[in-house]
Amino acid sequence: MMTIPRDQWYVAAYSSEIGHELFSRTICGEPILFWRTRDEVVTAMPDRCVHRRFPLSQPPSRLVEDQVVCGYHGFTYDAGGRCVAVPGQARIPRTARLLPYAVVEQDSFVWVFIGDHAKADPSRIPRAPWLTSPDYTTVAGMEPLRARYSLLVDNLLDLSHETYLHGGHIGTPEVAATPITTEVDEDAGIVRVSRHIDDAECPPFYANSTGLQGRIARWQDIEYMPPCLYTLHSRIAPVGSVPAPDGADPDAFHVEVVYAITPETAHSTHDFWCVARDFALGDEGVSAFLAESNRTVVRQDVEALDVLEQVIAAEPAGYQELSINIDTGGLAARRMLQRLCGAS
Amino acid sequence: MMTIPRDQWYVAAYSSEIGHELFSRTICGEPILFWRTRDEVVTAMPDRCVHRRFPLSQPPSRLVEDQVVCGYHGFTYDAGGRCVAVPGQARIPRTARLLPYAVVEQDSFVWVFIGDHAKADPSRIPRAPWLTSPDYTTVAGMEPLRARYSLLVDNLLDLSHETYLHGGHIGTPEVAATPITTEVDEDAGIVRVSRHIDDAECPPFYANSTGLQGRIARWQDIEYMPPCLYTLHSRIAPVGSVPAPDGADPDAFHVEVVYAITPETAHSTHDFWCVARDFALGDEGVSAFLAESNRTVVRQDVEALDVLEQVIAAEPAGYQELSINIDTGGLAARRMLQRLCGAS
Amino acid sequence: MMTIPRDQWYVAAYSSEIGHELFSRTICGEPILFWRTRDEVVTAMPDRCVHRRFPLSQPPSRLVEDQVVCGYHGFTYDAGGRCVAVPGQARIPRTARLLPYAVVEQDSFVWVFIGDHAKADPSRIPRAPWLTSPDYTTVAGMEPLRARYSLLVDNLLDLSHETYLHGGHIGTPEVAATPITTEVDEDAGIVRVSRHIDDAECPPFYANSTGLQGRIARWQDIEYMPPCLYTLHSRIAPVGSVPAPDGADPDAFHVEVVYAITPETAHSTHDFWCVARDFALGDEGVSAFLAESNRTVVRQDVEALDVLEQVIAAEPAGYQELSINIDTGGLAARRMLQRLCGAS
Repeated sequence: MMTIPRDQWYVAAYSSEIGHELFSRTICGEPILFWRTRDEVVTAMPDRCVHRRFPLSQPPSRLVEDQVVCGYHGFTYDAGGRCVAVPGQARIPRTARLLPYAVVEQDSFVWVFIGDHAKADPSRIPRAPWLTSPDYTTVAGMEPLRARYSLLVDNLLDLSHETYLHGGHIGTPEVAATPITTEVDEDAGIVRVSRHIDDAECPPFYANSTGLQGRIARWQDIEYMPPCLYTLHSRIAPVGSVPAPDGADPDAFHVEVVYAITPETAHSTHDFWCVARDFALGDEGVSAFLAESNRTVVRQDVEALDVLEQVIAAEPAGYQELSINIDTGGLAARRMLQRLCGAS
Repeated sequence: MMTIPRDQWYVAAYSSEIGHELFSRTICGEPILFWRTRDEVVTAMPDRCVHRRFPLSQPPSRLVEDQVVCGYHGFTYDAGGRCVAVPGQARIPRTARLLPYAVVEQDSFVWVFIGDHAKADPSRIPRAPWLTSPDYTTVAGMEPLRARYSLLVDNLLDLSHETYLHGGHIGTPEVAATPITTEVDEDAGIVRVSRHIDDAECPPFYANSTGLQGRIARWQDIEYMPPCLYTLHSRIAPVGSVPAPDGADPDAFHVEVVYAITPETAHSTHDFWCVARDFALGDEGVSAFLAESNRTVVRQDVEALDVLEQVIAAEPAGYQELSINIDTGGLAARRMLQRLCGAS
Repeated sequence: MMTIPRDQWYVAAYSSEIGHELFSRTICGEPILFWRTRDEVVTAMPDRCVHRRFPLSQPPSRLVEDQVVCGYHGFTYDAGGRCVAVPGQARIPRTARLLPYAVVEQDSFVWVFIGDHAKADPSRIPRAPWLTSPDYTTVAGMEPLRARYSLLVDNLLDLSHETYLHGGHIGTPEVAATPITTEVDEDAGIVRVSRHIDDAECPPFYANSTGLQGRIARWQDIEYMPPCLYTLHSRIAPVGSVPAPDGADPDAFHVEVVYAITPETAHSTHDFWCVARDFALGDEGVSAFLAESNRTVVRQDVEALDVLEQVIAAEPAGYQELSINIDTGGLAARRMLQRLCGAS
């Protein structure tokens, strides 16, 4: 029985989502209140007044100069979660405080630590440097998923589904037909799945964005850093082109497809997606096309996974699925997540 | 606590519903995939890919020459449920198969056997020959019921409700006022409830379809073959007319009202209904009238039974209802169903 | 764990709601059928036929000369809940009866006793005489609350929330800023909370209805008689005005704000509200203004409490809230309710 690993960093939002207003999002079952202070720091605390549970993000609750005033009885908290005013008395109870969450802004994301605050080590946050690099242009979005996060992990670790679920958009027959190699780095906490296709049809997603005509070499190198961050290093090149020994790869087009997989509850997920490219930098037409195409693909996943969540809800206890070679990466990811669940 | 009998035949659909496309319906809690093969045989198997549970009826899953291709990762099954292709490898796991359901097409219905396949004996399927007989003209439909099937069994075994719930359509005061006789054939598995009314008002349902004017003899002879098939042999005739000793009954009008009562889940039911008549054969005006009238009556039942399901959901545990003479048939049916539940 | 006290009187409706038609309302989880007989007496019985549970308020059930006829099979009950007719037989089973509820009409309300009928003592029903007094003009309404009744008790026992949740309508800064005194009369079963503000801003609710200009003395004297009846004796007067020793108080305006807090289910509540004033008697403009203003305020409460019910549903087990001085009355009310729950 998979649950949600605690004592972990999760992406709660894009940095661009958090401004100088109250913002609420539920992460791993915990409703969290965010705002950006006048010092431009993102603060995070439980979105629930200690007094009578009223959500501090719910009007008429309001933000007044970096203090949030509860809309029910006026309990007031500063950006550190300390209660600074209560109604009808001058003395503020010592226990009247909201424990702030550890927050790190990095690579365009707002990361929060869910679990024991003392274990929050920012150096453990995995990186996605392309998303803010001047050498890349990125489009991004977020789709809500009414399915458990592990279904999205399964989905992304096995890209053979592109051929079927995303045929006509990003999938071609060669994806499902080409075997994968899987590598698990237990110490670093990374699952790697690679599929190098030497000669493939070019799907519209890449044909329209790169301008490549004819068949292509298509490399998919996945790195999943459980529980939250997933990157697909995608390399598209004319057939026969390979990188030079020094890494130079001038004929190829590189796309870093990044997902942050954040449980909202046990049965719903925030599906953050980003597409960073090293070509057509700043080209708004290409950006618009890739954003729309990837959103379409993500929504196809969302529709399918929402159905699977319903299937699981209705099926008899003890139902067993069947796995084959393509699932090697997904099964490794599940084992790693299971261990993270046990360890917390 | 009534549940759903297993090791039983249930009506899953009308034959006319299953064509050369994927068709899905949940029977007794089991989602089942149907299609009619190029040999015109109806095939049935679980509507859930063995790999990652994706419904095989859900687009982009599709039927290709009597093979169904899963829309998620391309697992492919033939009409016998055998997996014939999986992505990324040539070897197909021995356990990659969907166990087909026993299916019989008979009397306009598609019957499936729910339970242990080895016990599926087609000779146990009860008959409703009128539905395909050239001596009868039949109208039919199906209404979804958001209530447990046993509430519909109760409803149909006690027709005194026609006077109240269906007054103005098919009920008249004499139905509720006339006592019933009940007979239980345990060996054959049949509950019979009869009500012969010698002199009754003719309700619009029969007045408009038969053309009879004035008062009528109205006989209702129910045969219920648990769990699924119910027939009401309805005889309408001028007052005083009785069948001859040899069975000849030229002055009477006969209607065979057939219901197939199929649990969808523990709390919802497929309510199949058919009205077969031995008069006005092929008369489209009479057919349209009877179809519309019976649909109206069935919807009155559906509305009432949906309410009862909600009443049961909200009532305290251990609530006891009170039964009287009119319930003799319904109580016998419950006992027989209870025994079928225990026996499976 | 608070539940719903039994063996208690609850307001089921306004007298004006019950006429010579079937009327159904669920009180403390029990669906109850009401009508006013031709003798103008309100009768109450379970809204569920003893036979097959059909709601007697649900069409085609109908009232025929003080007898209710079940719309499913025609079971017929008189105003005392006695079954007087069943279909298909003359003998009526002795157990075929609906136990009537004790009902008292008083102070514009229809009170019903939930629990052991033998314990129903009308003298224990708390009074709200202003609501039918010729010396007062009353406006009233009822709002459905999708939250447990105890959240409404909390809400009404601590009026400091007026400053925040109802700012601009009925709240001003002085309400939350002024300490309360609390008094618990265990024998009489009354919780009293008083807040006397000597010099306060006059909120629109009172400014527009009384015509008072400038600052006011504002007294709030709450009496809560668990579980159901709550009165706020509100006194508004020019600053400095106090009642004479003999009680005469000619410069003040008095408003009796009465709430009946009736659980519908464990998680929903009927929120009856009345505003009775001793000024502008019969003035329709003032009545319309106070009705609209109080409805607005009640709906602000409803919106907030509906949110709290959802917060509770999602929070981890064992979550603890924090209480301060303003909660003294609410906590006393909870203890009294807890005792009533245990005693029944």
